[in-house]
Amino acid sequence: MDFPNPLVTVDAVLLTLRDGGLEIALHQRDREPFLGAMALPGGVVHADEDTSTEDSIRRVLRDKTGFEPRYLEQLQVFSGQDRDPRQWSLSVAYVALVPAAELEAATRAEFRFVSVDALPPLAFDHAAIVGAAVKRLRGKSSYSTLPFFLLPESFTLTQLQHTYEAILQTRLEKSNFRRKMEAWDVLEATSDYVGGAQRPARLYRLKDFTLFDRSVA
Amino acid sequence: MDFPNPLVTVDAVLLTLRDGGLEIALHQRDREPFLGAMALPGGVVHADEDTSTEDSIRRVLRDKTGFEPRYLEQLQVFSGQDRDPRQWSLSVAYVALVPAAELEAATRAEFRFVSVDALPPLAFDHAAIVGAAVKRLRGKSSYSTLPFFLLPESFTLTQLQHTYEAILQTRLEKSNFRRKMEAWDVLEATSDYVGGAQRPARLYRLKDFTLFDRSVA
Repeated sequence: MDFPNPLVTVDAVLLTLRDGGLEIALHQRDREPFLGAMALPGGVVHADEDTSTEDSIRRVLRDKTGFEPRYLEQLQVFSGQDRDPRQWSLSVAYVALVPAAELEAATRAEFRFVSVDALPPLAFDHAAIVGAAVKRLRGKSSYSTLPFFLLPESFTLTQLQHTYEAILQTRLEKSNFRRKMEAWDVLEATSDYVGGAQRPARLYRLKDFTLFDRSVA
Repeated sequence: MDFPNPLVTVDAVLLTLRDGGLEIALHQRDREPFLGAMALPGGVVHADEDTSTEDSIRRVLRDKTGFEPRYLEQLQVFSGQDRDPRQWSLSVAYVALVPAAELEAATRAEFRFVSVDALPPLAFDHAAIVGAAVKRLRGKSSYSTLPFFLLPESFTLTQLQHTYEAILQTRLEKSNFRRKMEAWDVLEATSDYVGGAQRPARLYRLKDFTLFDRSVA
């Protein structure tokens, strides 16, 4: 090689829905650079053991959080001279959508949840990565089943509507939303209900884990 | 570093519209690996001179084809042990949309145009990269002004409709297409016309180079 090789890393934006808003899981860095700063979970690609960068990020998430997200999507590459003080570096950024309960149960204590609308200063260019991830989720959610991956496997129609509303940052009209969901034909009713005996709400689930594209807004 | 560093490259799918169909520009490799095979234009990231991987692909395209595409988008990363026989490698793949006349004038003789529906065997995993690029273009075209970037700067409404039809692989109804374009309000009429004196066709251009999202199909 005639040129210095870039440092190749992977990072993940773990998006979840808590208290009615989008949040991400961050940890505090315990080494330089950016010692003490909050950062996305990530790590260096291990060319001798990882079969791809997707394999790298799955290994990092297993090691750092102990779980594998059901939905993981490659976001984009962030690269250049200035993003890491050590050397020219490249990060393949991923977005994972995770139900809050699943993420809370799996992540170790050092992870902290913060709202995407009130980020602390982040290490490297991680604030830009989070911004791109949120934009991607919001852009895709109005015409896809992406938001389902933020819910537990079974959920009420009200929970589903609130999830779309939180992501799209808008109120949706209830009967119109339900009509679109029915026409979309992606929901499967379970035989379970939640809530009081008087007005129990039926639980639904996504027919399968395939993404369906169609406008809901 | 405890791990062998991956080889970091960039590749571009140069998409254009010729003879009513989508084509890409390929060149024949003059070195190992895959000596003699057709391949996408690409190269190694030069960490000492490129400010980002986008800067890398622009340098490679300038050097190999002599021009800079008006529309260039990061597609995704392709990575792993098996895609390059030399070592674990990672390619940041880009899609460029280029008007045919512009591409033909700029590319050197060694480039060959082939239909995306009749690819020869390609070097590395370049066939998979082309497949992802075509899927991305087709997926985005039904609701965006992306297809405009395959046209010269001014064009007739008939040329525009044929471009959408070629990408979407469907016939669009003329008056309906024109009504949607008008409602979309992205076109600007020029004072120029083409064609015979009896039924000259007005030339239009996109209001600016911003991407507009809306369904045309």
